[in-house]
Amino acid sequence: MITTTYIVSGMTCGHCVNAVSSEVGQLPGVTDVKVNLATGAVTVTSDTPLDDAAVTAAVDEAGYQVVTAQ
Amino acid sequence: MITTTYIVSGMTCGHCVNAVSSEVGQLPGVTDVKVNLATGAVTVTSDTPLDDAAVTAAVDEAGYQVVTAQ
Repeated sequence: MITTTYIVSGMTCGHCVNAVSSEVGQLPGVTDVKVNLATGAVTVTSDTPLDDAAVTAAVDEAGYQVVTAQ
Repeated sequence: MITTTYIVSGMTCGHCVNAVSSEVGQLPGVTDVKVNLATGAVTVTSDTPLDDAAVTAAVDEAGYQVVTAQ
């Protein structure tokens, strides 16, 4: 299992968390997504290394923005 | 047509607006719901006078709170 954390801006409520979790959770290999609304940290667990560009695109699709990948 | 405005607290994003609009829009007689996210003003257009308690309950169902009915 690989865990990668992204900082996402623009999330303001539980609906935002759900939207990001849903989009990122659909990426191939992703098994879990945890979001800390207060910090914007989105922690993604996956079977295989993530493509940062794909994660950024998924977050964008949900209507938010990846600030940094950690 | 009757227009009634409620001030609702807790809405922070477009998802919140949709949640409130959807719940209030299902009330009998309601033909339109407009939400101003910046001010929290929810303007409800209806065929018949609204039951404030029903609107308050619908907003509560969506996860928010009516502060005042105007």
